Amino acid sequence: MSGDPLFLEPFWMEHAASSAVLISGWHRMSYTFYDKSFISQQLENHVRRVHEVAKNAVTKGKYVLFGVGSTQLLAAAVYALSMNLSSPASVVASSPYYPLYKFQTNYFENKRFKFDEDTSLSSNSSYNTEANVIEFVTSPNNPDGNLKEAVSQGPLVRVIYDHAYYWPHFSAIPSPANEDVMIFTMSKLTGHAGSRIGWALIKDEQVYEDMNTYISVSEMGISREAQLRALQLMKAILDGNGTDIFDYAYKKMSYRWKKLSEIVSLSSRFSIQEIPPLFCNFFEKVRGPSPAYAWVKCEREEDTNCNEVLRAGNIIGREGSLFSDEDRYVRLSLLKSDDDFNLLMDHLSKLVAEENGAKTAWIF
Amino acid sequence: MSGDPLFLEPFWMEHAASSAVLISGWHRMSYTFYDKSFISQQLENHVRRVHEVAKNAVTKGKYVLFGVGSTQLLAAAVYALSMNLSSPASVVASSPYYPLYKFQTNYFENKRFKFDEDTSLSSNSSYNTEANVIEFVTSPNNPDGNLKEAVSQGPLVRVIYDHAYYWPHFSAIPSPANEDVMIFTMSKLTGHAGSRIGWALIKDEQVYEDMNTYISVSEMGISREAQLRALQLMKAILDGNGTDIFDYAYKKMSYRWKKLSEIVSLSSRFSIQEIPPLFCNFFEKVRGPSPAYAWVKCEREEDTNCNEVLRAGNIIGREGSLFSDEDRYVRLSLLKSDDDFNLLMDHLSKLVAEENGAKTAWIF
Repeated sequence: MSGDPLFLEPFWMEHAASSAVLISGWHRMSYTFYDKSFISQQLENHVRRVHEVAKNAVTKGKYVLFGVGSTQLLAAAVYALSMNLSSPASVVASSPYYPLYKFQTNYFENKRFKFDEDTSLSSNSSYNTEANVIEFVTSPNNPDGNLKEAVSQGPLVRVIYDHAYYWPHFSAIPSPANEDVMIFTMSKLTGHAGSRIGWALIKDEQVYEDMNTYISVSEMGISREAQLRALQLMKAILDGNGTDIFDYAYKKMSYRWKKLSEIVSLSSRFSIQEIPPLFCNFFEKVRGPSPAYAWVKCEREEDTNCNEVLRAGNIIGREGSLFSDEDRYVRLSLLKSDDDFNLLMDHLSKLVAEENGAKTAWIF
Repeated sequence: MSGDPLFLEPFWMEHAASSAVLISGWHRMSYTFYDKSFISQQLENHVRRVHEVAKNAVTKGKYVLFGVGSTQLLAAAVYALSMNLSSPASVVASSPYYPLYKFQTNYFENKRFKFDEDTSLSSNSSYNTEANVIEFVTSPNNPDGNLKEAVSQGPLVRVIYDHAYYWPHFSAIPSPANEDVMIFTMSKLTGHAGSRIGWALIKDEQVYEDMNTYISVSEMGISREAQLRALQLMKAILDGNGTDIFDYAYKKMSYRWKKLSEIVSLSSRFSIQEIPPLFCNFFEKVRGPSPAYAWVKCEREEDTNCNEVLRAGNIIGREGSLFSDEDRYVRLSLLKSDDDFNLLMDHLSKLVAEENGAKTAWIF
């Protein structure tokens, strides 16, 4: 355990024995486990094993910190990495990027950091080497699914790698990720977004301690029920040889990408991102794309608002400007039920058929 | 639902259908319920019913907002109440007070608010009427168990009532609380601190929306598993006439206070706080004290560090300075297992016996 002991200890000592109907035989109500940790050691061990099977991250020599979804850990990382700096940190991300980074950083209105819309400064090699920069990198990227690297340069750049989608489901795994601060989430591993469980792999002890303090001060740990759910999910994943979920999810997402690509190939109005085939450390072969999202571009000069074009065809996506890019782009989620996905393909087929002069729907 | 729709909607649309082993028949993985709310409406209804039975808060005309323990809601309230002010708010609490208020407010280093150690300014009736003040009031108070009112004066004072202990367990309920912002927690109702479930009753819609935004931006909702646990607990509480838990908990805490008082009455070295008998709206009669904590004072002039005195007698409490009071005071938790409570009484009896010249222990 860590954080300010003055702060934490009083609460460890309080677990009300005040309920006749509820307490009997139930010793797991307290803030902490018997080892005084907020987190189940068993859960941590299982997370390490899942990464070993997926071959997507080096956990050896890393601290594991759990949070209320990756959302909380992103904030915790910014708070931790901006401590004890000589000047406030610029928080940056290169476009297109997941909008939460900006919303969250701006929302907190903290004295130690501020969001900077423009990465042209921090990515310039002649940039002020005294500048403190915290860069968010989503890899594979949300919205476009491509593997991404930090663009900022300088000795005081610190990077938060959001690896929510770095699973064989969504991307080739060229090698196990081994960065200083890496964030994962149950939401994109099994889909259990509502359980609000994420975890960070952290190399530096002080950063781990500082992130832990953020979680302690803002919420005094995370729900045991959520931890229990996460443990059961990890056990389900590891059942058998532990690769079933990845095989299944890759096939499913890969199939969807193929279907989408077939439709878009008939269009000159719409295009989607290119994701190159890559050697995958998990599948031990070169594999094609299976991203979580399509990053659709409206190619016609007049279609500056691509979302409107798609909405006219009964397709609801997220406009490019939300990801700090042009509204000529729209993100479509492929993380849907089969029914929803099939509807999406149906509506898109109709749009493409109309573009090609057909008045009747092109049946997918 | 509320918060910035640009921010929230993308995530409502994402619930991964990517897991063969885990997803089948399980439609409750998403961030939100079918009504697009982060929170179970059933849980909210049960919380309202529990307050009706306990007669401790007016829920009619109030919004109910859930958070990751009351801890998160305290932060959410400060963020919400400091929005759109002409100048930064001073956050205050009158001593002795729960240390988290200061730790949390200071930790966030926000531009919109700062913690002010001194309430002598805000409590002065000639105080600058343009000053923005946010006052935390714990009632019954942690550490001393007394019902407490705000001390700050002025038109721009806003109060966060932390009613964690405002249950028949711990205090007379003179009337149902009916303040603008009131915070409760499962931790002190049933003891399930580890589930991290708290809720706020909020009168003003905008404050509700702003607190909700804090929770959305920092964590995108709270764990469904924790919500399910809370719902089961509320159902257990409401089983039968719904008063069993309060009867039991009051008897338990009242008995403990009586035992403690008996020992302290033999001492001239130690004293504990006085809590006057009060008419209780729940029990419909005048009732005596049953606080969650003893606020012990070392009466001897030389005992300026009361915690050391108690530690020498194998009693570990929390020093007064943690609660922004003198170290002549120590908080002892009475929210323990029977075994722990009996040990505490045993050790305290020995200390008192020694004080009275006995070399052997006074057997309790």
